[in-house]
Amino acid sequence: MSEVGTPVVVASPGGADGADAAALDGPVRFDLRFEPADRKVRVPPHVMLFDAASWNGIAIDSTCGGHGTCRKCKVQVLEGTAPITTLDTRAFSTDELHAGWRLACRVEVVTDLRIDVPPLMTRPKAATVGVGRKVILRPAVQKRYVELSEPSLSDQMTDLERLLASLDDLELRAELAVLRRLGRVLRESDYKVTAVVVDDVLIDVEAGDTTERLFGVAFDLGTTTVVATLLDLSTGTPVGVASMLNKQQPFGADVITRISAIMMRPDSLGELTRLAHEALDELVSDVCAAGGVQRDEIYEVAVAGNATMTHIVLGLDPEPLGVAPFIMATKLWPEVLANDVGVRVHPRARAVVFPSLGAYVGGDILAGLLASGMDRDPRMRLFIDIGTNCEIVLGNSERLMATAAPAGPAFEGAAIRCGMRAAPGAIEVVRLTPESLELGVIGDEEPQGLCGSGLVDVVAELVSLKLIDPSGRFVTDKEASSLAPGLAARLTNLGKERIFVVHWRGVEGDVTDAIYLSQRDVRELQFAKAAIATGWSILLEDAGVKVDEVQQVLLAGSFGSYLSPASAVRLGLVPKLPTLRILSAGNVAGEGAKMALLSLRERAGAMALMEEVEYVELSDRSDFNDRFVDQLAFPD
Amino acid sequence: MSEVGTPVVVASPGGADGADAAALDGPVRFDLRFEPADRKVRVPPHVMLFDAASWNGIAIDSTCGGHGTCRKCKVQVLEGTAPITTLDTRAFSTDELHAGWRLACRVEVVTDLRIDVPPLMTRPKAATVGVGRKVILRPAVQKRYVELSEPSLSDQMTDLERLLASLDDLELRAELAVLRRLGRVLRESDYKVTAVVVDDVLIDVEAGDTTERLFGVAFDLGTTTVVATLLDLSTGTPVGVASMLNKQQPFGADVITRISAIMMRPDSLGELTRLAHEALDELVSDVCAAGGVQRDEIYEVAVAGNATMTHIVLGLDPEPLGVAPFIMATKLWPEVLANDVGVRVHPRARAVVFPSLGAYVGGDILAGLLASGMDRDPRMRLFIDIGTNCEIVLGNSERLMATAAPAGPAFEGAAIRCGMRAAPGAIEVVRLTPESLELGVIGDEEPQGLCGSGLVDVVAELVSLKLIDPSGRFVTDKEASSLAPGLAARLTNLGKERIFVVHWRGVEGDVTDAIYLSQRDVRELQFAKAAIATGWSILLEDAGVKVDEVQQVLLAGSFGSYLSPASAVRLGLVPKLPTLRILSAGNVAGEGAKMALLSLRERAGAMALMEEVEYVELSDRSDFNDRFVDQLAFPD
Repeated sequence: MSEVGTPVVVASPGGADGADAAALDGPVRFDLRFEPADRKVRVPPHVMLFDAASWNGIAIDSTCGGHGTCRKCKVQVLEGTAPITTLDTRAFSTDELHAGWRLACRVEVVTDLRIDVPPLMTRPKAATVGVGRKVILRPAVQKRYVELSEPSLSDQMTDLERLLASLDDLELRAELAVLRRLGRVLRESDYKVTAVVVDDVLIDVEAGDTTERLFGVAFDLGTTTVVATLLDLSTGTPVGVASMLNKQQPFGADVITRISAIMMRPDSLGELTRLAHEALDELVSDVCAAGGVQRDEIYEVAVAGNATMTHIVLGLDPEPLGVAPFIMATKLWPEVLANDVGVRVHPRARAVVFPSLGAYVGGDILAGLLASGMDRDPRMRLFIDIGTNCEIVLGNSERLMATAAPAGPAFEGAAIRCGMRAAPGAIEVVRLTPESLELGVIGDEEPQGLCGSGLVDVVAELVSLKLIDPSGRFVTDKEASSLAPGLAARLTNLGKERIFVVHWRGVEGDVTDAIYLSQRDVRELQFAKAAIATGWSILLEDAGVKVDEVQQVLLAGSFGSYLSPASAVRLGLVPKLPTLRILSAGNVAGEGAKMALLSLRERAGAMALMEEVEYVELSDRSDFNDRFVDQLAFPD
Repeated sequence: MSEVGTPVVVASPGGADGADAAALDGPVRFDLRFEPADRKVRVPPHVMLFDAASWNGIAIDSTCGGHGTCRKCKVQVLEGTAPITTLDTRAFSTDELHAGWRLACRVEVVTDLRIDVPPLMTRPKAATVGVGRKVILRPAVQKRYVELSEPSLSDQMTDLERLLASLDDLELRAELAVLRRLGRVLRESDYKVTAVVVDDVLIDVEAGDTTERLFGVAFDLGTTTVVATLLDLSTGTPVGVASMLNKQQPFGADVITRISAIMMRPDSLGELTRLAHEALDELVSDVCAAGGVQRDEIYEVAVAGNATMTHIVLGLDPEPLGVAPFIMATKLWPEVLANDVGVRVHPRARAVVFPSLGAYVGGDILAGLLASGMDRDPRMRLFIDIGTNCEIVLGNSERLMATAAPAGPAFEGAAIRCGMRAAPGAIEVVRLTPESLELGVIGDEEPQGLCGSGLVDVVAELVSLKLIDPSGRFVTDKEASSLAPGLAARLTNLGKERIFVVHWRGVEGDVTDAIYLSQRDVRELQFAKAAIATGWSILLEDAGVKVDEVQQVLLAGSFGSYLSPASAVRLGLVPKLPTLRILSAGNVAGEGAKMALLSLRERAGAMALMEEVEYVELSDRSDFNDRFVDQLAFPD
């Protein structure tokens, strides 16, 4: 079983050199030094010590997951201040309290701390997800098998009290629908049942011991593609992956055309919502079949999508997102059921819907940041999700800044004369020498057109050969003949426009049937590239970070995964850095969604990002146009 | 508009003499003395001062209703200890804190206190409900009209943030369904909207100012009769009342026969639930028509019923309630929507469902206790709800004890030869002298039979005239002729059984068509009476309270309202007390349901009763049978 979006390169935290920290004047952070591992992490104020450890892969004993009920997360604070809470007084003797013993889940970090973490009594399960993130398993969904004593005249506890008394490390509320089943299930199973809990809600009781059947589905709800991963939440293992094109395509390729469709015909909203639901639900069928899982064994789903996709899948009119002043209905979503996003799994399954930082920095980006661990990593990194809209995040564990740049549809293959999606037949790689041309075609088929990565490649190669000058203009035939004799015949005219033929589909020399790059295509790419480069250059300047201080560039999104780092540097799409520092991060949105299912703490970390990321609005910057024009040219 | 169950006599708190308090050794209580009113109340530990004042009709300024956000409930603690909270430090200067100023909603009562309450800046609305209870209006439902500024590029707050920012004294969460409407309503109404809030949930936004339209429905869901009262929650006024027979009657007259029906045919549960829903929903139609109110202007409903009726209306199998060991699904109910009890009002309206203290001390009794204010009143009182099952509560503000006694169906007119319900044609009053007989008939119609109060009356009068001896036997004809010459002809035989003819329907002397009381009927009544008297006599003994220390007997339920106090005393159905101390409390369950709608504080008070009332189980008392036999006789 292969996993969608397995990261190409693993980024391991550590190795902070302090230079970046000094360059950024974000909010205050505190140093936590964990002994005996001698691991140092920096965290914002008021984080709970238990969470900080968990986020950084440092396992502290716990069965309640940090609710203050199991009293197992005992640590010794060796240096720094950690006030004693009521729970501490119940868990420790006075001597122990004086010696600095505390429950980690109750310690709010308000100073630097040095902490000794006792060896684990129980080994926590962990999974590697996202960009090399080690996640300690603590799903919101949990199952508990209990054998209860039967009621009698001398023990008239109610059914619910009886069950909850056996789960007294949890503070649960039960739903009415569970109460309707409870009496029958208890009596039919001789009071041997499995409680199904999501967060603090008892969502079901099942007869007998079903603890090993515990699943969730993570969705990456893209404008173009929708991906579902079925996860075994008891092991962290993916047991089924499926994807399909977003069924909303007939309403337009990008979010703006889909919003326009709703503005034209308001009842399109219902149709678009229905299509989103249908897509998610069909993928559930696929992954269930692949994993041998019943639908009602899925107790939670997670959805990461941009703001428009998220509004639509929840049945909200996205129109205010599409027109100035670009207003979202809400940032954080209320409690949502899987049923609310059209997914027929367990009837009371929850849906975790990633919130959006802004109308154009959506839940997919938040999920991507979670997966890339940018907020936990001391290295200065640049995250770029390239698409019709390009989202850019710069920063490290000290400070994070985000912006959105309108790149236009060039990378999706739209607005490009011979452009096409990254589908079989698409030219995705182009290598040129003055004498030769070599193509990489998806599916090794007869070429049908240029997809985004092929477009970037061919322009980058032509710029390298100087067949396109830094201003973006094709050179004359004469110059071409001298610079690249073997390619000169491909630089020709179609009507009044200069073109470069990438592939003669029919007779060589017959441009009518050729796959080519036109002068206008180059201009489209220049505009897209300029928008993106303006975005990251403004972020770098605002953060006071120099280009060579950027230690890693993460290219996110399906397009980013296929882009040649060398070509991206050549065109100035990314800062001029050694290509080894430029990584395809894969489907980080989907990875973030998986992390949210696997760990309550990671989920909380994603929510914390809502506060931590500073949004930089480009549209009202007076220097935007100047910078944009500067960035239109290709680097010399 | 007349109100169902308006209390006959108003019971005013105050006048504690301490004797009862001394007699009871319940949990500790603290004295609160409110100045300048010089009102003293006693409360359990850990009650919030604001609540204690509110429950006792002492108004303290507040707009947030005790959530700690409006900072208006300023009081000065003159004596006693009230720790300073974080909120106090924000609301008061250091000098003020030293002078004892506190926010009443943050003061947890842990000592005796003397408190000065400043005069009100705003006059709170109040309504008189229940047994003379003055309730300060603070419904869970509230509406707020706001005019918002429109968004712009420099103010990109989300729709929800924008609305919530204007309601910043409330900490609200919004439901997904509201978010689906929010954008459209805001834009169509030029950002002038009314927020509809239930507890901490935003359940709707309405265009324009609709603050004056705010309604709730209180249901008394009886086994026999269902009553609905439509309340204007902004004024506390009832605007419509309607009642009907419980539509479940075809499945049996009492809860046990209905439970049996479900045990015989499990699919009867669905049918019984449907019939309960139908009844409630039809009553909503009636009260809406009476009050000129639209269904979607009803944002909350309250339901008080016994445990079986409550289980059934919520779709839960009541079978475990009907067989030993008599187990409820739960005591407290989870969040329930009006829709869950089949009531089609506002689609997101809540339902407050009264919890049950036990399988046979149900939510109707809890509501009745709330309405009677037994937990707030220093007088020793006895609350008796007479029906097929009889619930008895003894106590005062110091301690409350409850029990349930199986009285059987005699009072409902069932198992009585000429018995009938309290409907037109029922003999409800009987007055006898040795020479005469006088009847009161419901509707002044030709008598059809004896209802419960008529049954009690005729037996009581016959006992008084000694035509029935203390053991319950009819005297001989001879004795009758000497004791009551004018009635002797009525004491005759039907077959082998002695009977007393209450009304000759046809020819005088022709017993075949007469309405009569049989020897067996007297026995039925004796059994019922003995069960009840055993119940209250055990409670009195357990509490160490003498009969003449009981200052008031409240007869609850529709039957209790019609019962003659003199007859009840004569038969020993209630303790031997001056009849002025015996009051019909009316439909207290319905009144309690109204109070829960009108006041969050009263609702919390009802929940507190769940902890405060001690349940005394009669069925496992070794002395029960002895006492029962003792109580079979009528008092001399």
